[in-house]
Amino acid sequence: MGGLGEIGKNMTVVAYKDSLLVVDAGLAFPDDEMLGVDVVIPDFTYLLERQEQVAGVLLTHGHEDHVGALPYLLRDLPVPVYGTRFTLGIVKAKLKEYKLELHQDSREIQPGRWFHLGPFRIFPVRVTHSVPDAVGYGIETPAGLVVFTGDYKFDQTPVDGKGPDYDGLVELGRRGVLAMCGDSTNAERPGFTPSEREVGHTITEVFRQAPGRVIMATFASNIHRLQQAIDAAHQFNRRVAVVGRSMEETVAVARELGYLQDRGVIVELQELMKLPPERSVILTTGSQGEPMSALSRMAAAEHRRVELLPGDTVLLAATPVPGNEKLVHRTIDRLFGQGATVIYGSHAGVHVSGHGSREELKLMLNLLRPRYVIPVHGEYRHLIHHAQLAESVGVPRERILIGENGSVFEFSGEEGRIGGRVHAGAVYVDGLGVGDVGNVVLRDRRHLSKDGIVVVVCALKKDTGEILSGPEVLTRGFVYVREAEELLEEVRELVISVVDACRERQVVEWPAIKNKVRDALQDMLYNRTHRRPLILPIILEI
Amino acid sequence: MGGLGEIGKNMTVVAYKDSLLVVDAGLAFPDDEMLGVDVVIPDFTYLLERQEQVAGVLLTHGHEDHVGALPYLLRDLPVPVYGTRFTLGIVKAKLKEYKLELHQDSREIQPGRWFHLGPFRIFPVRVTHSVPDAVGYGIETPAGLVVFTGDYKFDQTPVDGKGPDYDGLVELGRRGVLAMCGDSTNAERPGFTPSEREVGHTITEVFRQAPGRVIMATFASNIHRLQQAIDAAHQFNRRVAVVGRSMEETVAVARELGYLQDRGVIVELQELMKLPPERSVILTTGSQGEPMSALSRMAAAEHRRVELLPGDTVLLAATPVPGNEKLVHRTIDRLFGQGATVIYGSHAGVHVSGHGSREELKLMLNLLRPRYVIPVHGEYRHLIHHAQLAESVGVPRERILIGENGSVFEFSGEEGRIGGRVHAGAVYVDGLGVGDVGNVVLRDRRHLSKDGIVVVVCALKKDTGEILSGPEVLTRGFVYVREAEELLEEVRELVISVVDACRERQVVEWPAIKNKVRDALQDMLYNRTHRRPLILPIILEI
Repeated sequence: MGGLGEIGKNMTVVAYKDSLLVVDAGLAFPDDEMLGVDVVIPDFTYLLERQEQVAGVLLTHGHEDHVGALPYLLRDLPVPVYGTRFTLGIVKAKLKEYKLELHQDSREIQPGRWFHLGPFRIFPVRVTHSVPDAVGYGIETPAGLVVFTGDYKFDQTPVDGKGPDYDGLVELGRRGVLAMCGDSTNAERPGFTPSEREVGHTITEVFRQAPGRVIMATFASNIHRLQQAIDAAHQFNRRVAVVGRSMEETVAVARELGYLQDRGVIVELQELMKLPPERSVILTTGSQGEPMSALSRMAAAEHRRVELLPGDTVLLAATPVPGNEKLVHRTIDRLFGQGATVIYGSHAGVHVSGHGSREELKLMLNLLRPRYVIPVHGEYRHLIHHAQLAESVGVPRERILIGENGSVFEFSGEEGRIGGRVHAGAVYVDGLGVGDVGNVVLRDRRHLSKDGIVVVVCALKKDTGEILSGPEVLTRGFVYVREAEELLEEVRELVISVVDACRERQVVEWPAIKNKVRDALQDMLYNRTHRRPLILPIILEI
Repeated sequence: MGGLGEIGKNMTVVAYKDSLLVVDAGLAFPDDEMLGVDVVIPDFTYLLERQEQVAGVLLTHGHEDHVGALPYLLRDLPVPVYGTRFTLGIVKAKLKEYKLELHQDSREIQPGRWFHLGPFRIFPVRVTHSVPDAVGYGIETPAGLVVFTGDYKFDQTPVDGKGPDYDGLVELGRRGVLAMCGDSTNAERPGFTPSEREVGHTITEVFRQAPGRVIMATFASNIHRLQQAIDAAHQFNRRVAVVGRSMEETVAVARELGYLQDRGVIVELQELMKLPPERSVILTTGSQGEPMSALSRMAAAEHRRVELLPGDTVLLAATPVPGNEKLVHRTIDRLFGQGATVIYGSHAGVHVSGHGSREELKLMLNLLRPRYVIPVHGEYRHLIHHAQLAESVGVPRERILIGENGSVFEFSGEEGRIGGRVHAGAVYVDGLGVGDVGNVVLRDRRHLSKDGIVVVVCALKKDTGEILSGPEVLTRGFVYVREAEELLEEVRELVISVVDACRERQVVEWPAIKNKVRDALQDMLYNRTHRRPLILPIILEI
C-alpha cells in the first residue's frame, strides 16, 4: 500500500484467502512540489472495500512513517491494533489529538511470544532502532512464513540493554522463511551503522566541557538519545528541562511507561531558569530546522520562554534529513549569530542512523535465509541496492521481487511472483481536507508559486456584449504593481480591444470570449516579461 | 556587495580615495522561498552612483557565483574587465547571449605579472580550483596590500600541472599583507580536500570496467574532470560526444583556447551513435538533477537524441549541492528504473570539492601572514569557522573582521575596522524583469503556493449597493472544486449576506465592503478547511 519507491507511508497488507492483516500505517512528508500539503497518507480504498475481512493492524514501531496514518485509517476502519507497550503508548497519545480511541480488542504484544489473529500465527521479534520497543514480525500463514523486519539496525551495545533477538531471528530462519520484507533505507551505506552509544560519548564530552548552558536538539522520539543526555546531565550535576510540544509528549509517555529514567534531574523550565547556566540543560525539538519548532524560535530570538545567552552551547544531535539541509543551515547560522557555540554536522559524532547499513542487511538475510526477498522501505535505488546485497549472499536473482506501491506479491506452495496490482495511491492531507487536494490543485499552486496570477474582470451587457464596467485588472505574485502601471494599463487596453473585436464578429459565447482574452494576455505578458502568470478572466452579465 | 553570509553573488569593491576597483560580480541561485525567481544579483546602486570612479572589474575565475552578474552590471556600467584567458573566454561567450561585448579596454592578465590600474598595482596569483585559470589578487594601494584569495584549494597534483603559485603567495606575504579576504566555503571540513586526480582514478576504473556505454554527468565548467574523462576514453579506445548546451559551450571555449586536449576522441553525437556501446562515452550536464538538463531528460526517457540502453553505465561525477538532493535522487531512481548501472554518491570517489578544507585555509593564512583577516564567501557559520582557524594560527581576534553585505572594512595606516555600511542588497531576476519582483510579490507567491486563491466578484448598483450580478466565486489551488460545491455555495451566500448587511447599515465605501467580505470569508474558510487561501474580493460598479 505504501513504502515502495518512496521513503515513508509504509503500509503492507498480508492476505490469506479472505483474511487481511495490515502491517503498519505510516504517513509521508510532502515533496517540495506538493505545495501546501501537510502530510501524505496511503489510499485506503482497497481495505475499505474489504472492511469485514480486516483482522487488525500490526505495528512495528512508533515512528510517523509507520503509524502516522493510523488516525485516518481507524476513523473509517475501526479495527484492533497490535503493538508493543511503547508503540501503543505513542499511538494512544496521537489518537487523542484526533479524538479517537483504540478499538477495544487492541492488544499490547510481547516480543518473543507467539499470538494468533484469524488464520495467522504471529511472532514479534525484537529489533533495535532509533525508538524504543521496535519489533519485526514473523507471520505464519497456511501458505508459509512471511517475515517483516520492520526498521532495524543491529546495535551491539544498545542504550537500554535490549539487543536484537538473534535467537528469535534464527528460530524463524530455521522454520523456513518463505518471504522476507526487509528495510532498505540504508542499503547504499557501506559497513555497519555505529551504535547509538557513539552519540552518547559526544553528548558526555559536550556536557563535560560546556562552560554554560547546554541546549540539545534531537528527534522527539529518540528516547535513547534523550536518556543519554539525562545520564550525562546527572553525571555533571546539571538539571534538565524539556521544551517543545512533541518532545514533551513523548517524554511524558516514555516516563510513564518506564522507558526513560529521569535520574531525578528533570525539572520544569521555570525551575531550570533559577539555576546557574553551567547547571542547566534544555532538551528540545527543531533539529531539522522546522520553522515553528522551539529551536528555530530560539535561533530567531522569538521563543516565548527561552532566550539564548552568550556562553550557551547548542548541540544539534541529528543530521539533516535530505531536503532539510537549507533549513538546518539557516538555524545554525542564526544560532552562531546569537553568539552561541554550535556543535553540529557529520564530522562531530552527533548522530547515528537508526537503520542498518549494508553489512547489517546482509546479516539479517543470513540469519533469516528467506526463500524470497522483497526489499521494502526505500526509493527505487535503495530497493535495487538491497536486491544486489541479497544476490551477494546467495539469493537467486529470480527470487528477489522488486515491486511498487500496489504490487501483489503472490505465493503459492514454494513459488512466488509479482501477480498483478491492486489500487494504491497517495492521498494528500491539507488542513482538515483529506483528499480534496489533488493534482489539479497542486498544478495550480505550482503555477501560482512561480509567476502569480492576473485576474481580469468586466461586466458585459447581456445581448449586446457592451462593456458596462471594467476591465479591472488585479495581480498577485506577478509583478510589483507600482513598477508595472504601464504594463497593467496595456492589459486593460488589450482586454477592451479583444472584447470589442468579439462583439464586432458577433462572438457572444462567454467561454469563447474568455479564451480569447486569456490567449491574448498570455502572449502579450510573456513577450513583455518572459513570465507566465495564471490568467483568470471573469465576465459578469448584467 | 555580496558573498558575506551567503553562498554566491560574490562581489567586493576596493576603494582608495576616489578610485574604485570591483573584484568579481557573481550571481546567486534563489532560495526555496524565492518562488519563481531565476537568479539573484547584487544591488549595484553604490557603484552606479559613482560611475566615473570605477576603474574596472577584476575576475578571479569563470564560475557563475563570480561572473554571473556581469551582464547586468556591464549593461549599466560599461567598464573594462580584467581576467585570465579562460575566464575571459567564458565571460565573452556569456555576454554574447545578452548581446553585449567587453569594453575595449578590457585586458587578459597573466598570472604572476604585476599590472597597473588607476592608483592600484595588481598581482594576479595562480591558485587551483575546479575551473581552469583561477587566480587570487594582490592589490597594492597606497594604504597597504590587500589580498583576495579567490576560490581555491591547494591541489598538489593538479590535472593541468599548473599548481598554486606558492612563490607568489610567499612573496605577497613578505611584502606585508594588510588584509586578506579569504574563501570560507569549506571552513567546516577537516583535513585537506583531495586532489582532482582522485576523481580521475574513479573515472578510469569505471571506463575500464563498464561493459557498454558510459554516460558521465558533471559540472560543465570542470574542464579538468572532462579532460580526465577524455584521457580515460583515449586509454580504452572509446569515443566521446558532449551533450548539453552549457557543456558544449564551455568545451568549445576550452578547446579553442587550448585548455582541453581532445586526444582525437571527441566526435559528434551522430558519429558516436554508429559505434558499439563499449566504445562510446557521453559527457553531459545534469549532475545536479536540474529538471531541464540533458541527463534528467535521458532519465525520464524524454531526451530527443539519447535513449538509455540496458548495459549503460551512468557515472554521476558530482555530489549534490545542498538543496539539490531530492532532484538528484529522483534522477538516480529514474536511471535505475531505465535499467542503467548508476555510480554515484559520497562513497564512490566521484567528486572532490574545488574549495580548500581547514588545513588548506590555515596554510593560506600561514603563507600570506595577513595583519587583518576578512573571511568571505560563506554563510555565517563558515565565516565563524574561518575566523576560528585564523585565531588558531595566531591572528589576534581583534584583527579578524566578520562583516555582512554592505559592511565597510576601513584601513588607515596599520589600523583596520568595520567602519559603517553602504547600500547593498539582493535584486531578483525573474524572466526579463530585473528588480520588479520584491518582497511583496514573493510573499504573495508563498501565500498562493500554500493555499491558493479565492476570487469573489460581484457587480453592485451605484448608490444603492444592490447586487446586480454575482457573486461569482472562482478558486485556483485551493480545493478540488467538484468536491467543494457545497462549500463554494456557502461562500456565495456569505458574500450576499455581508453585502446586504453593509447596505442595511449604509456602509457604501467599497474598501470597507471588501474588507468585511474578506474577513468573513477568511474566518469561515479557515473554520471549514484549516486553510488560509488568499482572498481577492472584486466589486464592479454599474
